[in-house]
This record gives sequence, structure tokens and C-alpha cells, in this order.
Amino acid sequence: MAAYQAPLRDMAFVIHELLAAGEHLRRMPAFEEIEADLLDSALSSAARFAEDVLAPLNAGGDAIGCQLEDGAVRTPPGFADAYRQFVDAGWPTLSCAPEHGGQGFPSLAHSTIVELLNGANQSWTMTPILSHGVYRIVSEHASPALQARWLPAIVDGRVTTTMLLTEAHAGSDLGLLRSTALPDPAHDLPDTPAYRLRGSKIFISGADHDWTESIVHMVLARLPDAPPGVRGISLFLVPKRLEDGSRNRLEVTHVEHKMGLRGSPTCSVTLDDARGWLVGRPHQGLAAMFILMNEARLNVGVQAVAVAQGAYDAALAYARERLQMRASGGARHPELPADPIIHHPDVRRMLLTQKARIEGGRMLSYWMALCSDLEAHHPDPAERADAGDLLALLTPVTKAFLSDNAFDDANLALQVLGGHGYLRDHGIEQRVRDVRIAQIYEGTNGVQARDLVGRKILGDGGARLTRLLARMRGFLGDPAQPSELALLFAPVQRLADAFEAGVGQLAEAQQRDRDAADAAAYDLLQALGHLCFGYLFARAAVLALPKADAADPFHAAKLETARFYIHQLLPRAFAHLESARSAADGGLSTLDQQRLFG
Amino acid sequence: MAAYQAPLRDMAFVIHELLAAGEHLRRMPAFEEIEADLLDSALSSAARFAEDVLAPLNAGGDAIGCQLEDGAVRTPPGFADAYRQFVDAGWPTLSCAPEHGGQGFPSLAHSTIVELLNGANQSWTMTPILSHGVYRIVSEHASPALQARWLPAIVDGRVTTTMLLTEAHAGSDLGLLRSTALPDPAHDLPDTPAYRLRGSKIFISGADHDWTESIVHMVLARLPDAPPGVRGISLFLVPKRLEDGSRNRLEVTHVEHKMGLRGSPTCSVTLDDARGWLVGRPHQGLAAMFILMNEARLNVGVQAVAVAQGAYDAALAYARERLQMRASGGARHPELPADPIIHHPDVRRMLLTQKARIEGGRMLSYWMALCSDLEAHHPDPAERADAGDLLALLTPVTKAFLSDNAFDDANLALQVLGGHGYLRDHGIEQRVRDVRIAQIYEGTNGVQARDLVGRKILGDGGARLTRLLARMRGFLGDPAQPSELALLFAPVQRLADAFEAGVGQLAEAQQRDRDAADAAAYDLLQALGHLCFGYLFARAAVLALPKADAADPFHAAKLETARFYIHQLLPRAFAHLESARSAADGGLSTLDQQRLFG
Repeated sequence: MAAYQAPLRDMAFVIHELLAAGEHLRRMPAFEEIEADLLDSALSSAARFAEDVLAPLNAGGDAIGCQLEDGAVRTPPGFADAYRQFVDAGWPTLSCAPEHGGQGFPSLAHSTIVELLNGANQSWTMTPILSHGVYRIVSEHASPALQARWLPAIVDGRVTTTMLLTEAHAGSDLGLLRSTALPDPAHDLPDTPAYRLRGSKIFISGADHDWTESIVHMVLARLPDAPPGVRGISLFLVPKRLEDGSRNRLEVTHVEHKMGLRGSPTCSVTLDDARGWLVGRPHQGLAAMFILMNEARLNVGVQAVAVAQGAYDAALAYARERLQMRASGGARHPELPADPIIHHPDVRRMLLTQKARIEGGRMLSYWMALCSDLEAHHPDPAERADAGDLLALLTPVTKAFLSDNAFDDANLALQVLGGHGYLRDHGIEQRVRDVRIAQIYEGTNGVQARDLVGRKILGDGGARLTRLLARMRGFLGDPAQPSELALLFAPVQRLADAFEAGVGQLAEAQQRDRDAADAAAYDLLQALGHLCFGYLFARAAVLALPKADAADPFHAAKLETARFYIHQLLPRAFAHLESARSAADGGLSTLDQQRLFG
Repeated sequence: MAAYQAPLRDMAFVIHELLAAGEHLRRMPAFEEIEADLLDSALSSAARFAEDVLAPLNAGGDAIGCQLEDGAVRTPPGFADAYRQFVDAGWPTLSCAPEHGGQGFPSLAHSTIVELLNGANQSWTMTPILSHGVYRIVSEHASPALQARWLPAIVDGRVTTTMLLTEAHAGSDLGLLRSTALPDPAHDLPDTPAYRLRGSKIFISGADHDWTESIVHMVLARLPDAPPGVRGISLFLVPKRLEDGSRNRLEVTHVEHKMGLRGSPTCSVTLDDARGWLVGRPHQGLAAMFILMNEARLNVGVQAVAVAQGAYDAALAYARERLQMRASGGARHPELPADPIIHHPDVRRMLLTQKARIEGGRMLSYWMALCSDLEAHHPDPAERADAGDLLALLTPVTKAFLSDNAFDDANLALQVLGGHGYLRDHGIEQRVRDVRIAQIYEGTNGVQARDLVGRKILGDGGARLTRLLARMRGFLGDPAQPSELALLFAPVQRLADAFEAGVGQLAEAQQRDRDAADAAAYDLLQALGHLCFGYLFARAAVLALPKADAADPFHAAKLETARFYIHQLLPRAFAHLESARSAADGGLSTLDQQRLFG
């Protein structure tokens, strides 16, 4: 099995060349002590941890999985020890604020670490990955008493964290959830009411494990006076162990058997008068939880890119070694019995498709991470608002487009290996199974599309979209751009126009048919994903062009990858717009379901 | 887990309404005793066997897999008994000729049985499925002495069969294979030279099992005087047991751990002076093997449709039951806490995509099966040649387009279930893992694309393609077609024109760059698949239109499905043509691999 190699140079290209992150960070007082080389050295250390500690545990984690024994979860061999090393090296503190004992790194740094950990071992990463979002919820919404009790342990990694949202009958539709919380005043903390929680939750990543003494669960449940639906949901902090060290009344009842991600314990949990404390205001739990959810959605995008990269690396190495048939243009290695398959155009098509979408995904997701820093910390309120709008608009695109691409890319990697890819031996089929979940969790990609089109585009009359398009057009239409790139920019400009027209048609269709937006949403999200990638590849091409003739082929490859994406993958966006137009025109709602589905 | 339900009505629609198979069969003397109702009753019996016997074994086969113990393979519980029932009911004899003890059913009937068995249990079906192709090789190419010895056992199912092609270093490129055959005149049969075979083979489905006493292996190897490459490969029949009941020197050394298809033993095999007999002429083994291979490629298309259908059925059932959120057009079931998710347009998009591609795949693959009958048995040589040309042209499309679609469709089915689809409990994730192999075996889909474009289209100067396009245009442009369907036909006609233009451009590009055809092949295959589906849906729409207002919604749904396909999925073909144009234009070969891939 190919070892994991952190793609540090590709990551640095996005951070320093494309995003010029150092310049942005210098303008934000929160990061004035974070120099660019500090970022790089954090990246290098994380890369070593990912390569040396996490990657070797990945295949075994899949083969052995997690066991539930006497109500306690045993994780695969080496996982707990890897977590101790992770904590000892101080990684959980990285992006927490210095006033809470953190190192104060930007979200952008957090995202790069998320990529490295997931590239090496997606299953292991599932458990620690939530802590930063929970840290934000607790530091922004919990009472001082709760913070005093739990924040230090979350920041330094003495506890891991979970989110208990889903119930068997309530997944995409959290408004249906039934878990309850009854007042338990005997255990109130200062300004922090205590509750007894009851209910059953499913799909809980890391609900139990053998890594830490305690775990902090963030639980959604209803107060006795809660209104029905999503406006009646409150958020609670429920620890695995109470102050005296005894177990809280929260029990893992089952570990799921999943297609992949088998090294991560996905649990069913029962709360039977478990003790918890309210976080934030009554009935407003969903809004607090969405801090975590939005961060998790960006993480899913980064994670998907990471897993696809690992599969691509293995496929590329195989394609360079595997000898089958002669290149159609004539033998490239007459001294060998056949040519390496990387010389076959169809293999190059598969490899370049993966490479381009991985690099596009990295550009989009790191850009969003930077927007998250700008939104939180830029001194200019207008810049903060602008970054926040962009982030809100493109979070669903980042989650869904990148995870759809990654699953397809991991499968292309498998395909490069042919029958050998279908065997467990090469580790690619595990990546296919692992990354499949990214299209589902943290809101299915269908839910993302609905969020994008209904809330983020039509919801503000297209204001955010108009600003994004203006930004793209400003760049692509700048007369100072090199004329050699005009042919490259043209399809992206055409797509921007076609996308805007498609949204206009949809807004009209929606007046006639309230199903129109949902019917067109998936295809519009895909088209917007392509447009973002096209724009980012155009930017990358401008950066790469002056260095494309260097002896080092790095920038030449960036330019060629941009060309490949825009000329060979971007055309799909126009097909999506055509499908969206047709769908909005009634194609999905003309017949009732009985007649349509027989 | 949802039980398997044979889609008999959809199958009958294709057989009787679309293909009017009865009329065709009546014109062929070989089938004059096969009445349409005989076909239907065979189908019903096979459906019961698939539903009652095979389907209940599918999940267990995946969970338990196959074990190698003391050189013998143990298959999952129930598999051997199911095979005994299969043999006792006479299924192996179905499509063999009456002079060999068969029932003389057409290939079309064989394909429908292939669909039913695979729909219920793809892993189990892997072993018996090859026998019909091996029957054809042995009955057409083996000596009378070999036929006398083995044909009856192949026909009645006392033995199963395998094909030993692949070696570790020789997959797509069989020219590299190294296994050898040395003369062994002491064991010659009348007019049938014997050989001692040596070599190692991998990826052998059903190379051993606990179903039958013996197994007939068809083995590719080189004679001592063999020229190098594919023109030096001969075909041998190598039985598991020799005439005296002793074991031949062929040993299973390993059972692979695969992503899916775990109920099927995929074996590594060593031949250490195994005794075999030459089939056909020396050095011409590949041509004989391609009888089997072409049949296997059509079977893969049918198989892929079958597995996707099983996943779709489970997703459809779930979507009718699962309650989440309100339909965007307003509550459909105000009496329930939420609406069934089938009312959400995005869920309908996913379901209709599956439904349309499954039905399109069934139309194309059954049409090809009928062509195989026409090629073999039509009394008019011109009809035979025409059917053979069509079959040769569209076999790679059937194999690759249907298997690509099926994998995507099984994943859409999984997506409909959200997180629940990712669990083993619903059986869909198994279907995803199982059907993934269909894109790989019997020639990867990249190899299919190369065959289509290089050999089947450019290889005859476009003659076969021109006849296919003329047939499509004759139908679509017929002034007698109902005017209500003009809008439906238009995109298909546009696609036919665009496809023809694309092939013309490619032929020119190929003059300049010998990589052009291979670079464009994948996208052209996809576009031709869409064109075939568009044409077949147009035909289906013409049949369905007059019955679309009936109380029974069956034909109305067929019409809507055709509309959905042509308006919402067919647009992708134009994107593929654009990608093919760009690829042929040098997009995959401008930079050397070191510069391109870093």
C-alpha cells in the first residue's frame, strides 16, 4: 500500500501564491503574531504526524473496526495512542484563542491541518475534528461557570466532543426531534440551569472510545415549554463523567456497521435522565449548533479533497509503474515489454480529472477558510460583512461539490488500477468507501443545494450572488490580464453569464411553481461549483503563466491543469444549467408520485 | 432489508412492446417452437427462483465471504444448495441447442435470466454465468472428442466453468501473458492434442467451490513455437478432475479480499503441469475466447442494470415511507408529522435518474441480445450481417455506459436513504460495492471506449455508425410520428448530428495526432450511450403515448420517464462532445508526464 505523502507544495501554492494569506493575516490584529513561516512550520509538523503516526493505522482501523463491550467502545489498535501524541504535541490548542490557552492560529491553518489528518486517516480524524466547533460554541454561548468547568479540557484535548443531533426519525428534519430536557435545579451551576435529558440519538461519531476519561456531548433536546419544530430546540452540554468522576446516564447501545469509516465509532446513544446544562438561550439551540455545523461543512469539503488526494497519489504511482500495451502514438519505452499506462491518453484523462478537481477543491476550501478568518477578525466591518456573505453563499457549494467530486475522483483512482484497485491491498477501495459518507453527513448534498438556492441565492434576491459574479467579472475582464489567457477565460465568462441568466429564469419559474427552486437546486449547485473552480483556475493560471517556462515544471503543470479543467470539465456546467432549466420548468412535478413511479 | 422483486412488467414492456420479440423469433427457424408465452413462463419461474432462493442469500454471502481451506474453496452458506436447485430445474440447459440437450431458447431469454439472477444475488451468479459462453466455445471450436467428454456436463450444469486469462502482469494487455503449454502426446485424445500447462493466473471467478465435483477451466497459454504478443496465444480446456477422478495439477493459492462481490470466490490459480487439451487452432485462442468475452460484455451490461434496479427498488420503498420536512409546494400529508420524502423534488430527481437509466439500460441490452439472435439465426444473410454490425458497434457501449450508469445509480439510491444508506442494514451499500466491478472486468470501460472509437467507428471508416445513425434518423424523422412528440425528438436529432460531426472532427484530428482517438474515446462513448438511450426512449414514447391516459399509469410513467431522460439527462451528451473535441485537440498530450504530473 502506498504511504501517505502530505501535498505540502500544492498546499503552499494555495496559501501563499493564490490567497497571499500572509498579507491578509498581517491586517488582522488577532493574527499579528502569526508569521507565514510559523504557518509553514506548523504544517510541516502536522504532515510528519499524519504521515508517520496516522497513515500506518488507516488500513488496520478499517479491517478491525470498533467494538462495543460492556457499554464501552474499543477503537482500533494504535488509535488511542495516536490521540495521546496528538494532544501532547498541542494540536487541539492550535486555533483556539490565547485567552483560553490556545495558540491563536487562523481558521486557514486549522483547515490545512484538517486536510493532513484526513488524508492520512479519515476514520481517526472523525473524533478530534469536532472539538474546534464545540470550542467555539462553548466559548461564545456557554455560561462562565460551564466555560470554567469544560473549556480548558476542550482546548487542551483532555476531552473529545460530539454532537447529538440525529434521531432515528429526525435526520435532515431536526424539527421532528423528540428528546426532552426537564429542569433539575438541584444541580444548577451559577447562572446555568441543569436538566435531566431523555431520548435516543443515532449516528453519533465518537460517542464513546478509549482515548480520554471524559467526553463532552453537545445535545439537542426540547424544554417542557418548547414550541414545536425547529424553534423549540435547545442545546445542552452533557459530559460523559460528572464532577465526582461517576458516569452520567448516557449509554452507547450500538456501534453501526457501515460501508466505510469503520475505524470511527458511529454510535446509537440513549439518554436516560442524563444530566446536562443549558448552553445559550432556551429554544435557540439550533442557531448555536449551526456555528459548529457551518464549520463542519467546510471541514467536509477539505476532508473530501484530502481523501481524494490520497487515492490519486496511489493511482499516479501505479500508473507510472504498471506496464500494459503500447502508447497509441508509438512505443515510449521500447526497452520495456510494454509502456507504463500513464502514457495512455485515457489514463491521463482519469489522472488529470482527479488532479484538477483536487486542486480546485483545495483552492475553494482554503479560500473559504480565509473568509472565515476575515469575517471574524478583519478590522473593517465592510470587509467582515463581505467575507461573511461569500462564506455563507459558498459553504454549501464547498461541502457538496467537493464531496461529490471526491467520491468520483476516488473511484477514478480505483479505475486506474483496474482489477487491482478492487482489492483491499491497495487501500483505494477503502478511500472510496470512507469518502462516500461526505456526500451525506453534515446535511446531505441535496440539503446543501436547497440551502444554496432557496436561502442563499433566492433568499436575498440574488444580492450575494451578484457580488460574487462582480468579483469574478472584475478579475476576468481586467484589461491588464495576459492576452495569452483570453481563450482560457472566455468559457468562464460565458458560464458566469449563463449562470446568472439561469438564476433569473428560476426566480420567474418559482413565482409559478413553488417546487421550481428545489427541482433545479442540485444542478445549479453543480454549475456554481464549476464556475468557482473556473474562476480559481483562471487566477491560478495568471500566477503560473510567468513561471511556466522554468526548469522546475511545478507552475507549468498548474497552467496545464487549469487548461484541462476549463476546456474539458467546465463544459459539464452548461449541461447542468440546461437540466436545471428543464427541471424548474416542471420536469419533476408534472405527475403525481403514484403515476410517475408505478 | 427490502426483498428482491423481479421487475417482470418492465421486462415484458421491452421484450414484447419495444422489441416485438415474438415477431422476430417467429421468422427464425431455430426458434419456431419458442412461443412468446413460453418466454414469459420461463421468466416467471426464474423470477421465483431469484426472489425465493437467491435473494435471501445475498447479504449473508457478503458478510461471510469465501474461505480457502486445504486448497478447496468454501462458498457462503446456501450457495451450493441454490446451485443444485438451479441445475435440477434445468436452467443451465435453457439457451443451449437441442442437439446438445438444451432447450433452444434465444439469447434474449438468456439475458432476461441473467438480469433476474444478478438482481437477486450478483455474487452467486458470477459462477454459473460463464457457462453459456464456454458452451458456445466448446460447441463451436472444440474437437468431437472433447465435446463428447465435456459438452453434456456443461449443458446440464454438472460442471461449472471459468476463464483463466489474466496474469499478474497481464490484464488489459493479454499479449504479455506467459503461461506455457508443452505437448503431452501420451494423453492425446482423437484429433485432440494434450498439453502440460504451467503458469499463474489471477482474478479467476469460481476457480474452485463446493458446488460440483469438477470444473472446466478455459485457459489461455503459449505453445513452444508461439509468436510473441496476442497472435501467439492458444486456448485449452483444463478440467479440475481427470477422467479417473483424480485432481488435475491446478491449484487455488489465494482467495482475494475484494471491495464487494464477496460471496464470489475470486481466486489466484497455479498450473503446475496441469493437463489440458487444445481448443480450436494453435495461436488462435484469443479469437475463440472473444466469443465468450463479447457475450460476457453484454452480460455485464444486463448485470449492471439488474443490480441498479435492486438498489432503486429499496430507495423507492424508503422514499415512500420516510417522513422528513414538508414538500416545498405545501404539505402533502398534513395528517402526518412530515411528508414522505418522495414529494421533495430533489429526491424525485434522484429516483427518476435511476429509473430512467435502468429502463434505458434494459432497452439497450435486450436489443443487443436480440441482435445476437438475429446475427446467429436470421434466415436472411443481410439481416444477419446488419445485426452483427450493430452488435459489434454497441457491445462496448452496452458494457461501459450501463456499468457507469449503474454504479452512479446505486449511489443515488444510497443517497436517497441518507445516513441509513451508509449502513449495511439496507443492503444498498453492498450493491454499490458489488456493482463497482462491472466498470472493470471483461475489459475496463477505458478499454471498451478504445474498442468503440478505434476499432468499431474509425476502424471501418464510420460505416457501421452511419447505418446506426440512418436507422435513428429514419425513425425520428418519419413524418408519421405523432406531432406531440416533436419537442421530445428534437434534442435526440440534434445529438445525432452533433455526434456525427464530432466523429468527423476526430477522424481529422487523428491524422495529425495518433493519440487523438484514445484521448476522445471515453467522452465519445458516453455521448453515444446517451444517443442510443435518447433513440430508445423516443421509441418507447411513441408506444406509450396512445396509452398514456389509461387508468393504469404504467404507460404514462413510461412517457414521463422518456421526457425526463431526454430533457434532463441527455444534455450531458453535448458536454461530453465538447470535452471529446477538446481532448482530441491535444488536451491530453501537450505536456510530457513528468511536467504534467509533477
